[in-house]
Amino acid sequence: MKVLVINAGSSSLKYQLLDMDTEKVLAKGLAERIGIDGSNVSYQPAEGEKIVVEEPLKDHKDALDIIIEKLTDPKVGVIENIEEIDAVGHRTVHGGEEFAHSVLIDDAVIKTLEEVSELAPLHNPANLTGIRAMEEILPDVPQVAVFDTAFHQTMPEYAYMYALPYELYEDYHIRKYGFHGTSHHYVAIEAAKLLGKPLEDLKLITCHLGNGGSVTAVQNGKSVDTSMGFTPLAGIEMGTRSGDIDPSIVIYLQGKGYSAEEVSTILNNKSGAFGVSGISSDFRDLEDAAEKGNRRAKLALDIFDYRVRCTIGAYVAAMDGVDAIVFTGGIGENAPTTREGVCKGLSYLGLTIDPQANQVRGKNAVITTPDSKVKVLVIPTNEELMIARDTVELSEKK
Amino acid sequence: MKVLVINAGSSSLKYQLLDMDTEKVLAKGLAERIGIDGSNVSYQPAEGEKIVVEEPLKDHKDALDIIIEKLTDPKVGVIENIEEIDAVGHRTVHGGEEFAHSVLIDDAVIKTLEEVSELAPLHNPANLTGIRAMEEILPDVPQVAVFDTAFHQTMPEYAYMYALPYELYEDYHIRKYGFHGTSHHYVAIEAAKLLGKPLEDLKLITCHLGNGGSVTAVQNGKSVDTSMGFTPLAGIEMGTRSGDIDPSIVIYLQGKGYSAEEVSTILNNKSGAFGVSGISSDFRDLEDAAEKGNRRAKLALDIFDYRVRCTIGAYVAAMDGVDAIVFTGGIGENAPTTREGVCKGLSYLGLTIDPQANQVRGKNAVITTPDSKVKVLVIPTNEELMIARDTVELSEKK
Repeated sequence: MKVLVINAGSSSLKYQLLDMDTEKVLAKGLAERIGIDGSNVSYQPAEGEKIVVEEPLKDHKDALDIIIEKLTDPKVGVIENIEEIDAVGHRTVHGGEEFAHSVLIDDAVIKTLEEVSELAPLHNPANLTGIRAMEEILPDVPQVAVFDTAFHQTMPEYAYMYALPYELYEDYHIRKYGFHGTSHHYVAIEAAKLLGKPLEDLKLITCHLGNGGSVTAVQNGKSVDTSMGFTPLAGIEMGTRSGDIDPSIVIYLQGKGYSAEEVSTILNNKSGAFGVSGISSDFRDLEDAAEKGNRRAKLALDIFDYRVRCTIGAYVAAMDGVDAIVFTGGIGENAPTTREGVCKGLSYLGLTIDPQANQVRGKNAVITTPDSKVKVLVIPTNEELMIARDTVELSEKK
Repeated sequence: MKVLVINAGSSSLKYQLLDMDTEKVLAKGLAERIGIDGSNVSYQPAEGEKIVVEEPLKDHKDALDIIIEKLTDPKVGVIENIEEIDAVGHRTVHGGEEFAHSVLIDDAVIKTLEEVSELAPLHNPANLTGIRAMEEILPDVPQVAVFDTAFHQTMPEYAYMYALPYELYEDYHIRKYGFHGTSHHYVAIEAAKLLGKPLEDLKLITCHLGNGGSVTAVQNGKSVDTSMGFTPLAGIEMGTRSGDIDPSIVIYLQGKGYSAEEVSTILNNKSGAFGVSGISSDFRDLEDAAEKGNRRAKLALDIFDYRVRCTIGAYVAAMDGVDAIVFTGGIGENAPTTREGVCKGLSYLGLTIDPQANQVRGKNAVITTPDSKVKVLVIPTNEELMIARDTVELSEKK
């Protein structure tokens, strides 16, 4: 069974075609600058050269047409014709409280997604554009929506409710949703395999650390708390996002003359490691600069390590213990100094990092010493595979 | 040596006269509704009946005149004349970054306090009113300002800096300050005594839980992190304050038509345990209601316990361990069910509450079992005594 996985942003579209009998990627790529000058589509078959097609793309449908053309191209393609695509899985950011699991897309689902869009105005409409374009191209193939929020729908009420007037929850659905659920779920499953124990018996803390980042407490296979909130702004320091701050600061800045929109831009795009350092949101740049004595670059990294460490500490308390901590995402998979910085204050848990093992990048590994009571794991995430797995499961039920 | 301690609010003034040779309170009381209809001053000598004087008070000076009159009254007074007051200590909310310690008040200090007022517009101007009124009455007596923020000035930079553009710190002094410092410091000192160990060797987490509440990590006698932030809104759920929320919610609500001021009122006065339960900010009311089956009252209590527990967990990680957890403040001193609820998920620390010992209210006690690795203490706070001690120390240096 072959599954096409789509991750549609407002002006971009990531895709992967997977053979789910082997769980191998057949081809993947990215369409960029859709609806903007200078658009292009990249195409990378598992075997063979990467191709970049520079062509105007007025919408997501244009991009998908080129992608299908490449996938079925007699020379560089990986399938003979479009009918070989058995199902399509869509990464969908926000499922609200409506979707605690992935779902086979039909008209009712699309209607609900439109309603939920209000909660994720930057993401869900883009996801919907991808779904509609795909329906036009492959009207008879099952399509599945896989939600970033779904895995976190198991949080207990006392963890997802804010201490706000209850009416704000009833009227506007203001609560903690959490994001990166597909990634947290995937690495939790892989962690259980690596530890050789049933996921149902484990207390895990999964740290998805990339340009956006979140930390999740996974108890007996279920998300019981996570650091992102009503939106993906909350939680730890991120590349350009502030994470948690005293909410009064928003109002204080408005009193200083910033508009609500300006404050939103500051918090989402000009804060985080970039805002503190003033130079970059890329941790490699920051590590280089810190090494050369840039005080603010070092501060940005120190804040990051500290906040992640404190969040881990909070979730150990939330679960009354922890068996393993998992690092994933661009930084989690590839930054030994960050992993070491986060874990250096966790010796009270009986956790000891093995400095040699911690040098690993981008592959599954245990990076604690054999006698460490709490294990620390590196597990590269694979959201596309997770989406494809759900897509197979649901489309077979159709 | 006799010290008058003043806590001036915008329309109220709390006072205590202490004999610092014995550290005993000679008399205390409260002036209410200053500048408003129906004002009154209460006066309670250590021995004798409480007196309430109902009289118009146009300003803080009027209130202090009545207080001095009662203190020196031949029948109900506790001193013979005003000259017996050797020094005056003022509770002052915000010392900004200028004041890391209590300070003898002079013109330069008043000027700095005026500048810092911008950071605490509701509190510092009221504190200054009390200072000015007292200077008029006792111009030759040393006056000392004791700051709620001072104890937290030892936080490391990575703990007090937000992941915001660095310029917001430089231009507007936006950072974490923390509050309740006098209380956290006092109970930390008392905890060391109760444990029979030097404060300098201890890792403590002090939980000041009242209508406002904050949790502080005290390592080797110094505050290294605290849950309140730029303002006293941040941190745990409080009586009517939201504590930490996704900062996007502020902007989201503005998009729904609320003004910045309305959102501020919601977060400060209509949220917290009151907002969640919809019935009360008083934990006794909430416990009663929860017992009778009120689901939202129970939720408000559950959120509180959970947030405090997670904050404790975070600070254990911040200090890489903890020797003792201290409960103080109205709730911390008097609510066994809350203490039990907070601690029930902390068995991973080797912490075991003794249910019998935990029944204590309002006095020093160890409430863990003898074999508990981490001790839990109840210690009634005494901010006035702490202010009086600093006042003695500084006025003797004059």
